[in-house]
Amino acid sequence: MRIAVLGTGEVGRALAGRCAEVGHDVVVGTRDPARTRDRDGYAGWLDAHDTIRLVANAEAGAHAELLVNATNGAGSLAASGDAGVADHPGLVVLDVANVLDFSGGGPYPAIGAATDHSLAERLQAAFPTARVVKGLNTMNCQVMADPARVPGEHVTFVAGDDEDAKAAVRALLAAFGWPAHRVLDLGGLSAARATEMYLPLWLSLFTAAGTADVNIALCR
Amino acid sequence: MRIAVLGTGEVGRALAGRCAEVGHDVVVGTRDPARTRDRDGYAGWLDAHDTIRLVANAEAGAHAELLVNATNGAGSLAASGDAGVADHPGLVVLDVANVLDFSGGGPYPAIGAATDHSLAERLQAAFPTARVVKGLNTMNCQVMADPARVPGEHVTFVAGDDEDAKAAVRALLAAFGWPAHRVLDLGGLSAARATEMYLPLWLSLFTAAGTADVNIALCR
Repeated sequence: MRIAVLGTGEVGRALAGRCAEVGHDVVVGTRDPARTRDRDGYAGWLDAHDTIRLVANAEAGAHAELLVNATNGAGSLAASGDAGVADHPGLVVLDVANVLDFSGGGPYPAIGAATDHSLAERLQAAFPTARVVKGLNTMNCQVMADPARVPGEHVTFVAGDDEDAKAAVRALLAAFGWPAHRVLDLGGLSAARATEMYLPLWLSLFTAAGTADVNIALCR
Repeated sequence: MRIAVLGTGEVGRALAGRCAEVGHDVVVGTRDPARTRDRDGYAGWLDAHDTIRLVANAEAGAHAELLVNATNGAGSLAASGDAGVADHPGLVVLDVANVLDFSGGGPYPAIGAATDHSLAERLQAAFPTARVVKGLNTMNCQVMADPARVPGEHVTFVAGDDEDAKAAVRALLAAFGWPAHRVLDLGGLSAARATEMYLPLWLSLFTAAGTADVNIALCR
């Protein structure tokens, strides 16, 4: 499948690398490819992932059958706009981002989610012809891409209003190594509020566990 | 130990009943004992728990070595005030409540917690001589009181600024059946923000699992 990953940070790298590793045709979208290449060891990362092309956001959008939003949540709407999500009706958008603002100090970042809104819903509202699925945003990016890093029956969540789009995301997660029974469908896209508001607990668990290789399992 | 439970709803009944069952000297505090007794089958519940006395909040506070706040979160400050928490310096307050407002409709209740405040911290600020510990607020009350209802290594959390108070709460949880390694200490009371903001995900898990007998385990 042709996958575009928006975002060149740690999350984007982990997911783009994994998508390529499991056989997909991957581009990474950024505002200014030349500048990204010069920054933070990105050129070296690209050399190590030679099937992945770094392109401008608009070209990434044109490439995509499935687009992964792995940008910083505060920039997700702009990046998706640059990628022309509005010009590709039906595009599946897997939104793994959280809106985290660490500028205020204190033990937790401010979070751009509440019980009446989420980033995923704001993306869906801004791009009504897209098919947004929230997923993977409840753990460290290395675990998103390779759940076998963490032992046990830990889970991930999907939420979205389009069943076919959720099925496409589920297929991608299966390729990453997520067994179907550990991908819990929380229902419509409004359930993204629940997973985005979980972030402070995730950060506390990360601290308590002393490792980012941590996730939750469901007992019932 | 002399325990007072504030709150006569489902949560208060589950916790008061369990505290008595494991051998504590339990009173339940309410605004108007005569009115509570007439309501919602409470008289019958009291008959079935004949070591428990229903008293006015002020008498409950005077009785308590440990006070459990199991009121509706919106009424917790007033109830704690009525219980005279300010008049009993050093009192351990186990706050299991969440501020949930279902009046807005929508898939999730409004929640009176955010990354910069929590109910537990508001209680601590209102009653600075109390020793507030947040705990048990991340699951159904039947599971709080009897974790063996749910199989597996599921966990609960404590957060608080006083180590001795946390130890007292841990001892109570151990009596309920929570093994020490499944009571995760998230640190200071500000971590209550994390567990209170988890509620929407808990509600989603409840729905997805189709049972209130559900909780999370940590994999690492």
